[in-house]
Amino acid sequence: MAEKKLVEAITAMEEDFAQWYTDVVKKAELLDYTSVKGCMVIRPAGYAIWELIQKQMDERFKETGVQNVYLPMFIPESLLNKEKDHVEGFAPEVAWVTHGGLQPLQERLCVRPTSETLFCDYYKNTVHSYRDLPQICNQWCSVVRWEKETRPFLRSREFLWQEGHTAHATAKEAEERTLQMLNVYADFCEQVLAIPVIKGRKTDKEKFAGAESTYTIEALMHDGKALQSGTSHNFGDGFAKAFDIQYTDKNNKLQYVHQTSWGSTTRLIGAVIMVHGDNSGLCLPPKIAPVQVMVIPIQQKKEGVLSKAEEICDRLKKVSRAGIDITDKSPGWKFSEQEMRGIPLRVEIGPKDIEAGKCIICRRDNREKYEVSLEELENKVTELLDRMQVEMLERARAHRDKHTYVAKNMDEFRRLFNEKTGFVKAMWCGDQACEDAIKEELAVTSRCMPFEQENLSEVCVCCNKPAKKMVYWGKAY
Amino acid sequence: MAEKKLVEAITAMEEDFAQWYTDVVKKAELLDYTSVKGCMVIRPAGYAIWELIQKQMDERFKETGVQNVYLPMFIPESLLNKEKDHVEGFAPEVAWVTHGGLQPLQERLCVRPTSETLFCDYYKNTVHSYRDLPQICNQWCSVVRWEKETRPFLRSREFLWQEGHTAHATAKEAEERTLQMLNVYADFCEQVLAIPVIKGRKTDKEKFAGAESTYTIEALMHDGKALQSGTSHNFGDGFAKAFDIQYTDKNNKLQYVHQTSWGSTTRLIGAVIMVHGDNSGLCLPPKIAPVQVMVIPIQQKKEGVLSKAEEICDRLKKVSRAGIDITDKSPGWKFSEQEMRGIPLRVEIGPKDIEAGKCIICRRDNREKYEVSLEELENKVTELLDRMQVEMLERARAHRDKHTYVAKNMDEFRRLFNEKTGFVKAMWCGDQACEDAIKEELAVTSRCMPFEQENLSEVCVCCNKPAKKMVYWGKAY
Repeated sequence: MAEKKLVEAITAMEEDFAQWYTDVVKKAELLDYTSVKGCMVIRPAGYAIWELIQKQMDERFKETGVQNVYLPMFIPESLLNKEKDHVEGFAPEVAWVTHGGLQPLQERLCVRPTSETLFCDYYKNTVHSYRDLPQICNQWCSVVRWEKETRPFLRSREFLWQEGHTAHATAKEAEERTLQMLNVYADFCEQVLAIPVIKGRKTDKEKFAGAESTYTIEALMHDGKALQSGTSHNFGDGFAKAFDIQYTDKNNKLQYVHQTSWGSTTRLIGAVIMVHGDNSGLCLPPKIAPVQVMVIPIQQKKEGVLSKAEEICDRLKKVSRAGIDITDKSPGWKFSEQEMRGIPLRVEIGPKDIEAGKCIICRRDNREKYEVSLEELENKVTELLDRMQVEMLERARAHRDKHTYVAKNMDEFRRLFNEKTGFVKAMWCGDQACEDAIKEELAVTSRCMPFEQENLSEVCVCCNKPAKKMVYWGKAY
Repeated sequence: MAEKKLVEAITAMEEDFAQWYTDVVKKAELLDYTSVKGCMVIRPAGYAIWELIQKQMDERFKETGVQNVYLPMFIPESLLNKEKDHVEGFAPEVAWVTHGGLQPLQERLCVRPTSETLFCDYYKNTVHSYRDLPQICNQWCSVVRWEKETRPFLRSREFLWQEGHTAHATAKEAEERTLQMLNVYADFCEQVLAIPVIKGRKTDKEKFAGAESTYTIEALMHDGKALQSGTSHNFGDGFAKAFDIQYTDKNNKLQYVHQTSWGSTTRLIGAVIMVHGDNSGLCLPPKIAPVQVMVIPIQQKKEGVLSKAEEICDRLKKVSRAGIDITDKSPGWKFSEQEMRGIPLRVEIGPKDIEAGKCIICRRDNREKYEVSLEELENKVTELLDRMQVEMLERARAHRDKHTYVAKNMDEFRRLFNEKTGFVKAMWCGDQACEDAIKEELAVTSRCMPFEQENLSEVCVCCNKPAKKMVYWGKAY
């Protein structure tokens, strides 16, 4: 009964995916609402996932020469206004500080929605000669965008992210860095989060305010909607000209720098929930599971059970992030909690198991159970965690591929988006009018022009004029 | 010549300590000013130190059961107003957000100067039963206080810190946690930063706005001024009553929780500079040095030198954070840079050394040089880093003890603060009037009532009434 209650507390995903999502976020204790409208608390269970994401992503950054820094959270209005496209993109959604202490400010400050302008200000002071280049900086911080509709992890007025900002001597180097970081994101999503992504370039309509080009990784959620999971922008020398960031090259000539920026956010946690979760709750890939194995004693009051379970937990701590549940709840309730929290493996051990020198290991993702000799415990747990990490990616890839369709004309395009949810691949003439028309009619957006182009037909799906690019389309979060 | 230039760029500390400090901060590239008044950039060399501080402090926190979370950066005015003393302490120095996007806000929001009120709001939603206690949370974030005078790392309008906030079932447990965290800070300062600290309690005049009691660790800088380096507050049930945070105890009765908070900031980096630095620049304790050993090839254009130096660097990377300087600067210039940046050890290797199968290792703190056989390299580097860590603490402790004086009456007290700088220990009656009078006359403040009390005399140094406590006094940053 009690077990049922915990599981019944979440809506079935087939019934109402949005409600299922909110229920999981809440019941797995990842996040909570606050008295501050549109802002949320990331609770210990949620923040521990973010810490594992940060650690593993930061290591990958540093391998490519990234250095972390911290810049102010405030941007003076005059600084924000320096690059025209950029300010137009962000000014409508920033929060303004107008008073410091008891005094009104001479110039109002916005709380950073992103920090291109501050990094430009910094590089202008720091970069003088070609010897000062490249600058490869990143910061982990929070940013603020005054969203009207908010959604846990996916959209909130304040969110945590990392933003990388670089300055280079040449356009070529900037473009290489832009793509390099996109590849870091893609590899991270696949290898760490077990989420397959499509890499591609945004159309001009969808690119970042102030960028020459924006690259993106797009993932498909369980409900068939797309989630932009990381972006990397090449600014060319546009910001450098607006902020006058010049350096002396080897021939003693003044040159503008070429810049990039790239970011990913706590919405990656939302992606993990919506790609791997099920009707029992969260399901975490082992690499970002704060607890990877939960030992649950059965009939723990019987002599010797608790001490054996603790011994097992201690052994497992040497090869994994292991925990033990010794509360006075029933085993069934503990199982439900472990499943709700998405803990990859559960080890069950009771009097009979101890007698037989074995235990039961149960995988969270596919519920497979294994009877394991206690001698084999560490090996088996290590093997299962590794296998689960790989198979979760394979399963997500199969789901993504199964929900990726091809449309060769508007009729097919309409039918697909009316009947199914997923990615639709279709050819495009490159004209924004077609993009606008499709968005208007079907409420779907161009997700990206993938690097892996296919020649599905010779004409644009919308206007029948000659096609230039294959585009992934989808309903997006 | 070139070498001289780099060193001459910083003012001698005996000449002007404040200028020396600013010069080191700037020349070691730790921090820079920005277009945002009172806010600074923490540059890669500075942020890497903060990352090492964070990592090692966070590990110590987690060993005591601390869980990290993230709460919003905004506090609605009504929430800030709930606890009378607290709002009076902070309201005059907060930044106010009055507009979100293009709209004025219905209620203005302050940017958090500290998060007691938000944690109260969170605990009110989360804590219902004794089973939900204790709550031991911490967050790493930035806070804003609208300071008029700012100083790199020591005082700025925005700064990075960690703030721990806990809720407990009993007053006893809250007091224990308050002291436990003070001990974590003290141990961290001594073992990691090599800075000895005095542990004690703040007087009522100096305690935190809203706290029942505030404990502090106080360190002595090289110029004899004191720096408050971490504080831990016991709130009793004051905030719980203001925010109505109650739980059902084991007897099914409603009880208020008892709360604590504790914080430390990037000013710890300022402390490291001012305790260990010298006229050649920064001097970092090995445990927080982003680069612990710098390999500098001598006559690097001669055949075999560069490859040998790189081989040595690769070997050292296995036992330390090692780097190599292969720029085309002169060795002397490289030595000066390594010293300016505070890198603990320098390995010099040239053609003659290679022939003799040895190298020179030079310690940053005391300039001792060692001729070391290349076979012994890893062992010697490890040994020297360990020894340097220990001896830097010993040296700082000796300096602190040498500059700690005793005053038994106002004449001695005056003479000491007129002639010397340092801590002065003196007895106090417990009356705030004496504290005020001393501050008024000598511009020194009570730093703390140390846990290790001594009975220096029977009477208060100021009023001659019976003494209750020995107090450390000092000029503070």
